[in-house]
Amino acid sequence: MNRRKAETKAEEWLIEEQTPSYRTQWRVRQVLHEEQTPFQHLQIVEMEDFGRALVLDGAVQTTVGDEFIYHEMIVNVPLFTHPNPERILVIGGGDGGTVREVFRHPSVKKVDMVEIDGAVIAACRRHLPETAAGLDHPGLNLVVGDGIEWVAERKEEYDVILVDSSDPVGPAEGLFNRAFYENVYRALKPAGVFVAQVLSPFFHQRLIRDVYQVVSTIFPITMPYLAVVPTYPSGLHCFMLGSKRFSPLRQGMKTPAWPTRWYTPEVHRTAFQLPPVVAGLVQPVAAVETARKPG
Amino acid sequence: MNRRKAETKAEEWLIEEQTPSYRTQWRVRQVLHEEQTPFQHLQIVEMEDFGRALVLDGAVQTTVGDEFIYHEMIVNVPLFTHPNPERILVIGGGDGGTVREVFRHPSVKKVDMVEIDGAVIAACRRHLPETAAGLDHPGLNLVVGDGIEWVAERKEEYDVILVDSSDPVGPAEGLFNRAFYENVYRALKPAGVFVAQVLSPFFHQRLIRDVYQVVSTIFPITMPYLAVVPTYPSGLHCFMLGSKRFSPLRQGMKTPAWPTRWYTPEVHRTAFQLPPVVAGLVQPVAAVETARKPG
Repeated sequence: MNRRKAETKAEEWLIEEQTPSYRTQWRVRQVLHEEQTPFQHLQIVEMEDFGRALVLDGAVQTTVGDEFIYHEMIVNVPLFTHPNPERILVIGGGDGGTVREVFRHPSVKKVDMVEIDGAVIAACRRHLPETAAGLDHPGLNLVVGDGIEWVAERKEEYDVILVDSSDPVGPAEGLFNRAFYENVYRALKPAGVFVAQVLSPFFHQRLIRDVYQVVSTIFPITMPYLAVVPTYPSGLHCFMLGSKRFSPLRQGMKTPAWPTRWYTPEVHRTAFQLPPVVAGLVQPVAAVETARKPG
Repeated sequence: MNRRKAETKAEEWLIEEQTPSYRTQWRVRQVLHEEQTPFQHLQIVEMEDFGRALVLDGAVQTTVGDEFIYHEMIVNVPLFTHPNPERILVIGGGDGGTVREVFRHPSVKKVDMVEIDGAVIAACRRHLPETAAGLDHPGLNLVVGDGIEWVAERKEEYDVILVDSSDPVGPAEGLFNRAFYENVYRALKPAGVFVAQVLSPFFHQRLIRDVYQVVSTIFPITMPYLAVVPTYPSGLHCFMLGSKRFSPLRQGMKTPAWPTRWYTPEVHRTAFQLPPVVAGLVQPVAAVETARKPG
């Protein structure tokens, strides 16, 4: 009986619809947690190939197998762009991987993290301890609340703001519009930097184009960059960086004093070299669209 | 009746097993061609999201939607590494995309292409005309035959050899061993360059490690490089470059005098910047492992 049950489980698949015509299937060893939160359908599953994973509304958010790429790239690029990041705001990031990487930077003094769904935090603490490690850092002010409201009430408070959200449907929808980016700008200090994840240049071209258009009218420096995350659709993932003063390609940036698995200063620089088909999304030309608006 | 049939077809999916526990599913509008050749199971399908595709033994080889990335990267990196590539050998490449890109280089005088499966060429000519465009170039000597034997019989004949094969199972198996790479070395002129596709750094780590180990004992310069190809497993694809004299990062390389969609000189350079987790596959360190053996 038990053996039969185990066999059945071994044949369970998580099917993620990337587009109506393109899906990925992951063989699932075990569903460790499943609930309907007030905001979304939440699962923690153990996959054969990438280990444990957080799944929200059927979309794989993070896996133990490749989360290091996403988290090293969303954190280290802006934090090394800023010469002395002390005050950080993370919006979303309930799995804890982003704050884990943030606290590796010795300049960081205090981090506010505002995650809308407390159930995500609880589930990741329990089932993804390596990822959630940062959530217990004494420098963390962990708020379960609405990041949109939080950022609207702040002024010149942060050196870096990281928008580590789920996709722009459901609870994250309000993180992808002009009012939000204007509030992010206002909440940053005069040399502040922000980054938002903006999905795949192959599957979400309109989103990337729209976000670039808006952010580039607000921030004097707006530069998208790329990273490969195998468990995300198409493998190629885009981040939008807005900066008030410092270029992410400035000279003399520091290098990590801790071991990294994906990020290096060279990987940082190369992430901004957009192939023409991606650069075309952020016309006129991404890496040239700088210093257009006074800071 | 016809309508019913059309509806049924619209619900057909091509399921590709990337690993026993990870699959991708593509909605297929139409199967345009299907046959069992002496070498493999061959399909041309029209997918919703990436257009027409060549599928061999159930594995997507090339799609109209993203073939330009693979072909621009397998061709332009070695051909711009060599200062004056005139004589080129392509092993495999039955879809024609590689020779199409090769013939854009004005220095190229003659190309031998040796594809083992004539049925692939015929099917691609008929159903993938944009990709197969290069197959009718007057400078092409198109041979249906065994690339392993062909290269074993040549000596100092080519400036560049491109191994554009399917995966190392089935007919391409012999393209991934020491004897083959030694023959490639012998078939190259004293300043020759070769490239082989070696799959995903996430799913084929042993293959990449093994090929690197072998190639680096034969070629004085051995450097893997990366490109993103969304329809390949994990999105990240690796190429192994071996060179007798010229570094792919040498100064003063030419730039394409024709429009490209992925390749640029910057993308060329960045392709060699390996994240630590990939660099670890090609120990001691990929980009340092040069000039070890006299040319």
